[in-house]
Order: sequence, then structure tokens, then C-alpha cells
Amino acid sequence: MTTVASTVRRGRTARRDRVLYQRLADELVGLIETRVLRPGDRLPSVRTYSRQKRVSLATVLRTYQLLEDRGYLDVRPQSGHYVSSTGGQLAPSPSVPRPSFAKEEVRVADLAWDLLARVNDKALAPFGLATAAPEHYPARRLSRILARVSRESGVASVIYGPPAGHEALLHQLARRSLAAGLTLRPEELLVTNGCTEAIHLALRALTRAGDVLLVESPSYYAFLETAESLGLRVVEVPTDPETGVSLEHLEAAARRTRPRAFLTNPTFHNPLGFSVPDDRKREQLALLARHGVAVVEDDIYGDLYFGDARPAPLKAFDETGDVILCSSFSKTVAPGFRVGWLAAGRHAERIRKLKLASSIHTNTLAQLTLAEYLSGGGAEHHLRRLRQAFRAQVADYSVAVARLFPEGTRVSRPQGGHLLWIELARGKDTMELSRRALARRVGIVPGRVFSTGDTYGHCFRLNCGFPLRGGREEALETLAALAREL
Amino acid sequence: MTTVASTVRRGRTARRDRVLYQRLADELVGLIETRVLRPGDRLPSVRTYSRQKRVSLATVLRTYQLLEDRGYLDVRPQSGHYVSSTGGQLAPSPSVPRPSFAKEEVRVADLAWDLLARVNDKALAPFGLATAAPEHYPARRLSRILARVSRESGVASVIYGPPAGHEALLHQLARRSLAAGLTLRPEELLVTNGCTEAIHLALRALTRAGDVLLVESPSYYAFLETAESLGLRVVEVPTDPETGVSLEHLEAAARRTRPRAFLTNPTFHNPLGFSVPDDRKREQLALLARHGVAVVEDDIYGDLYFGDARPAPLKAFDETGDVILCSSFSKTVAPGFRVGWLAAGRHAERIRKLKLASSIHTNTLAQLTLAEYLSGGGAEHHLRRLRQAFRAQVADYSVAVARLFPEGTRVSRPQGGHLLWIELARGKDTMELSRRALARRVGIVPGRVFSTGDTYGHCFRLNCGFPLRGGREEALETLAALAREL
Repeated sequence: MTTVASTVRRGRTARRDRVLYQRLADELVGLIETRVLRPGDRLPSVRTYSRQKRVSLATVLRTYQLLEDRGYLDVRPQSGHYVSSTGGQLAPSPSVPRPSFAKEEVRVADLAWDLLARVNDKALAPFGLATAAPEHYPARRLSRILARVSRESGVASVIYGPPAGHEALLHQLARRSLAAGLTLRPEELLVTNGCTEAIHLALRALTRAGDVLLVESPSYYAFLETAESLGLRVVEVPTDPETGVSLEHLEAAARRTRPRAFLTNPTFHNPLGFSVPDDRKREQLALLARHGVAVVEDDIYGDLYFGDARPAPLKAFDETGDVILCSSFSKTVAPGFRVGWLAAGRHAERIRKLKLASSIHTNTLAQLTLAEYLSGGGAEHHLRRLRQAFRAQVADYSVAVARLFPEGTRVSRPQGGHLLWIELARGKDTMELSRRALARRVGIVPGRVFSTGDTYGHCFRLNCGFPLRGGREEALETLAALAREL
Repeated sequence: MTTVASTVRRGRTARRDRVLYQRLADELVGLIETRVLRPGDRLPSVRTYSRQKRVSLATVLRTYQLLEDRGYLDVRPQSGHYVSSTGGQLAPSPSVPRPSFAKEEVRVADLAWDLLARVNDKALAPFGLATAAPEHYPARRLSRILARVSRESGVASVIYGPPAGHEALLHQLARRSLAAGLTLRPEELLVTNGCTEAIHLALRALTRAGDVLLVESPSYYAFLETAESLGLRVVEVPTDPETGVSLEHLEAAARRTRPRAFLTNPTFHNPLGFSVPDDRKREQLALLARHGVAVVEDDIYGDLYFGDARPAPLKAFDETGDVILCSSFSKTVAPGFRVGWLAAGRHAERIRKLKLASSIHTNTLAQLTLAEYLSGGGAEHHLRRLRQAFRAQVADYSVAVARLFPEGTRVSRPQGGHLLWIELARGKDTMELSRRALARRVGIVPGRVFSTGDTYGHCFRLNCGFPLRGGREEALETLAALAREL
């Protein structure tokens, strides 16, 4: 169920542009998962395998590296590569439950607020919020640009800016959209106070209190909060941790509940980490269009892919203008800048009105600084390094979870981002785990808040945004010990 | 109906702490308005009047200056002070109509968006939006602080900040609240993306779609937009351009319509410019409390007083915790920073939730920079100069309007801020005026958008945030000529 494994299983949806090392990796994963290769088996040496497959040494090295990242292989110095002791597959993937109803109300916002209030509390192991180590962000470079922009723009950085956003930033956003398989013009875009405001505006444009909103299950808890605050009735669609909501379930929900909109996070889903394959994105959209259901797409993790290319957002396949794409720089460049954006298709007019009525416009200097930053080559370099770091960190945490957590623990196979979804044995209460962990200075987000129901009471989200060192291994051990005690 | 004139009329509510020169000014205004002193009459020389009144020369100079600012006196070099030809009183004050119902829908947001989109268009005379000349803001100083804060705080300025706002800024806000007659603790405050987000959050916390919201009439158009976007039923309370909503009308509206909240701008009202006297603030609150009506108070202009002291916000008299105070730095320090705040009383918990669900938190660097700026003495100096500038500009525009606009034009007497409310003869259509003015590169905001009804079709708001020079006199002449042609 990693990128490579899932590709094998999907078969028919394999991407034409798959590069060589990934094909090799898929093949090996197939061998491991069908138990042709077993834990402890030694793989051919890099040189031998290179000869066997008639590929370069570099390709084999990259293949083995990828499998190592995913926990399929162990490296033993001076000896070679072995199928890892976790059975190649790490812990099993999470299951696909049908959402059930809640027995007790959980105050999501209170929990999130408590965690957010401690967002910079260095005493707390940062496994809860979806944050990343400060050193992952280009703070010094941004600071230099900021100082220059502020000096050069003079009063422009202090006075009101245009409500849609600053021209320079809109231009960069449009330019970057091309790389994501979109062609958005600057005038189609609106700059917002982060992705959350974008999603909030999108939902307000599409829905009224009492309307039905479809979401994935599990779903980012802030989505549920926002929906609740708008008086929407949330319907959770069963979601495969590997490929997203199934078309059957989506169709059934659309027919049964007459939803106004589908709020989705199809690319590196929070918390599951999947990326919906392109074919299925198209099918989802066609299905939703048939039922007159608009789409709010959260693409905030889109640039953080582990594979060789950025998946296109749903919006790239939008033919009706009914997809509102929302994103921000909060996961990639500067969370503290609070700069997000949206492309609202045919709902642009309505959203402009709502933006005026809710915050008018967005911090000028942050916009100008980001525009300047994105116009240089440094941004691409930074993103490349960030992706590598997150890929390695997610692999480290995955392996550690498989090693430390009790038998029966399942773990997601994210294809991008920096989040893991952990499923403990049924009956384990992660609200309780979260409380005990907090007392031991470890933050996690319990599964309970990712659903309006009771479905994920035994799951939790584990943030891998920080390298697994500097006391964080111990924190993870503490968490595993607490999980065992439950 | 200027600060001084209105004080005379109010009589009983005269403030105990009124300083000498203002008392003298009130006295002279009384003489002018009762026609004891008439246009063209020469006032006693400064020296003579000083002897007569047994006050210092400086006090007399200040008195005469104040009356000159308000258009009551003209100075003739080498000759002395004369009651001005506009009859001392400028144009008459606007009337107090009862709000009437709308015949046609006006797209407020479209109009506002068009103006906002041209907010930095130097070709447009800036009489529309409530902006001020860039040179009024301490851009260079903020830029220096920003560069330093950004450098010194390192990654802290780039990563997520605490959702309630940064401690340093909350501390400064609490400190500054003392000067406004409040005692707010940092933990009672929440930093927002400008005042508009604060008001939006407050309304969402207090109301649900279908609820009744009381507002002043006329009322800032963005209030009406926000209310509409939340599905609220707006009830406009007749409002005296000098003292705010009358208690009788407020009581009647509260009894008749069972409102959930009153959205008010009691201090230097946009667009009328009045400041509700303290006594009446107390009475308003008592009345609203009796009817279980909560209050959302916009205090954004509170620091821009023309008198000798800052009026206390309604919140200072709040005994139930039902007043939500909203404000920002957008009119005083840095519009482009988008930093506002609120003090939510007993609704704090609910608002925290909503903030999480709508934008999470606010630009870090802007908060840290403002905190640093406010901690120095420069901020008070800046605000003092800003108040003087706005007072002088409002006086200049008032005099010019009286001189240029057709017979029958009325004009407000703001006690702070930088906005004038102009009432043309009944039947004049300021939507049409606005269109023609825009074609001649002059922006105004037509009265029509300050009400859900037809009441102000012959009024408009005139922004005095820019000095009346550099082509702006000509622009005002153009506007007056267009008004005459209507």
C-alpha cells in the first residue's frame, strides 16, 4: 500500500510516465508481498541486479533506496540489502470501516485549541499538529527578501492592497499552477488568509445551513469544525486509505443524501496520505457532476509528493467550473505568513463578495515577499529538499512504529505529505492515549476528532514533520509504551 | 454639530474634563449659531480676548484655531479673525430620516469590490474608500522594525504562531486598552485578520441565519454585506448624526423585532462621524441588556478623536460580558498588515472555535512588528500627529464642500475619524453621481449602500483621509459640478 505496492495492485491504472526505478521497485514489492521474497532474504547485490535487469547501477541504488524508505528493505553495512523483519510491509494498512454514529460529543475545537496554543512549546513532542521542523522552512531567505521588499516598496507594504491579492503573487500562482497540470489565469485566483479561510469561503459560497456536505472518512478535523460552524450536515463517505473514496460509496451517498458539495483532500490526504489516481479523479468528477454536487478541493499537501511527479489536482479535470481549488504556503514555505489562495471557477463572484464581508484582503508584505521568493529558482530547490526530508521522515516514523507499537497496529502508506494514520487494535481508546501522552509531553491527535462518529476511537494521527531524533525517538517509545498499557 | 457646537447643544452631557480652550470655543459657537455673531463679524483680537477672559494667549490662539478648523472663522492676515462667510456653521447637518424600504437591489459588494480593486490607483481621487494618504503611516519605521524582528526572531516569524495571537502583541493591546478606559487582560483578547474578521466572528458567535440584527442607519456598507452573507435580517434604527441611535428608537426596535444583537460603531461612526456620549452609552447598554440583546462594537476609529481625550468604548461600560469589542490597526498604523483584535467577553470560547474553523491564526511577523512598534514611545507621537492631520483635513473638506456644493447640501460634523457624510437635496441620485464621478476619475461611495432601503439615495460618503491638495481640490470641484448637474 505504499506508492510502489499500491501501483502493483492497481495494475490497470499504472501511470504511463512511470520511471524505471519505480517499475523495478513495484516488481520487488510484488515479490515481497506475495512472499516470494521473505523477511531476512538477501537481495541480489546492486552490481548483480544491475546486470540482470540491464539497468544502471544508479537506478538499482535508487530502487533499493525507495524500498528502504518504505520499510521493505534493511541495509546491513558491508553485507547488502535484506527484506526487512517487519515482513516488508511494515505494519498492515489501516482498514476501511463504515462510519458509525457518535455516542458522546467530543469538543474538537477545544482539543485543537489546546494543541495549537502549545504549537511552539518545545517541551512537547510535536506528533500532534501538522507542523514541520522550523529548519525545514527558508526563514533566513524569506527574512532577507522581506526586509528588502519592505524597504523598496515603501508605503505600499503598509497600506491597503487589492482585495483579490497582489498582482505579483497572483502571477506566480498562475505560473506555478502550470506545473501542477492546471492553467489558471491570475484573474481567476483569490488570495486568502491561509487555506482554512479559502475552504471556509468556498463552503459558504456553495452551501447554506442545513445542507448536506460529503467528506472523506476519516477527514481532517478542521473540516468537520468548519462544517459544524456553518450548520452543515456532514455525511462521511467510506474511504480507502490507498485510493480515496470509492465511486460506489460516493454515488450512493450522492443519491441518498442530495449533498450540495463534497469537501475533499484528494492529494496526500490528511490524515490517510493517499493520492487519488488520475483516472479515478476524472470518474469522481463525472459522478459528482451528474448529481449536481460541487467540489471543494484542499490541495495544501499537493507539492509534497514522494513520487517522481506532482499529481494533478481534481481541478485540472474540472469541466463545469464547479471545483473550488484551495491551497496555501503553510505546509511548504511559511506557515506563519498565513497566505493561501483559491480558484473558484464559476463561483468566483460569490466568493469575492464573501471575502469582502469576512476579511477584505490579506497581509500585503507576506504576499509581496512570497511573490519575490517564488520568482527565484530557490523555491524549487527548497521544495525538492523538503520533499526528500518528509519522505525520509515518514519512512523513519513508519519503521519505528512497526518496531515499537503493539501487535495488531496498522499504519498508513502516505504517498506525500508528512502525516501517518495509526490504527491500534479495536477497543483501544486513543482519547485516553492522547490524554496520557500529553501528561508525558507527547502531542498526538486522537482519531475520534476525524469523524463525527465513533469510528476512529482506536486510531490516531502521527505527525512526521520533525526528524526522528533529538529526544523524539524516546517520545515515540513513550507513546508506544502508553499504547501497550491501554 | 462639530465637536464644539454639539457640546453646546448637548449641555447636560458636557464632559467634566473639558479643557479651557474647548469651553471658550463652545461659547463662541453658541454666539455664532444664535446669530449674535454673524458672518463677517470681526472677533476680538487674541490679546484683547485673552484679557477679557483672563486666559493665556496660547489658550485663545488654540480656541481660534479650533474654530477655524471647523469653518466657523476665517483668518485674514494682518487683520484678524472673522466669522466665516459660510455662516459659521458650514453646510447644515444631515437630517435624521426613518429608514425606508428598497425598491431595487443594489450590489453593494460589486461596487465596493470595484473601488477596492482601484484602491491604489493614483489616477482616482480617493474620496471613496476609507483610506488615508500613505504618508500618514509610519512605513519607514515599521519597515525597519520588521527587518529587525524578522532577522532576530529567525524561524519564529515563519512558523505557525499561537491561535489567540502573539503574547507580545496581546500584552500591548491590554496595555493600550487602559488608555481607552478599559481593563482587558491579554487572555481576554484574540488577534484577528483585521477588524472585518473580528466583526464577522462576533456576528457568527451571536447569531444564526434568520436572526434579527440591529444596526445604525446609515450603517457602514460592509456591515450590511456581512449581515447579508450570514443570512441575518437587518433592522435599521434611526440614528442622529450627532449622538447616535436614540434610546426610544432602540427600545422600540428591541421590543418589536426581538433582535439577537446590535452591531454598532458608536465612536466616530462610519459614515456619520458622531461619538455617542458616555451617559448614553451606559443607557444603551442597560436597555439592550433588559431585552437580552448582545452588542458587537466596532471601535476601529476610536483612537482618531478630534477632542482632547479618547472616548471610552461601549465595552468600558459592559457589565454582562455581552459586548464584543472589535478593532484593528488598519486606520491608525498599517492597513496592509491586516491585524485586528477582539475582546469577546462571555462569548470568548465560542469565538475561539470559530476562529479555528475559519482562519486558525494571523500573520506572525505583522503581529510581532506591531507589538514592537507599540512598545516604543513613537506610536503615541504618531497617533497624535495623525489625529491632527485628520482633524485639519476634515475641516478643509467641510469648508470646501460648503463653498462648492449646491444650495441645500448638508454635511456631517465628525468628532473623529476622516469621513464626511454629505446629504444633497432630496431627489438627487448619488448612484448616478458616483457613476459619473468614476468616469471623471473621482471615487465616492453613494449613500444607497449604507442602508438596505432607499433612504440615502441622495447622500454620499466623502473620504477626507488625503490632504486637500495635489489635484484633489480640482477633483472636489469636479464632483461638486457633477452634483450641481444632477
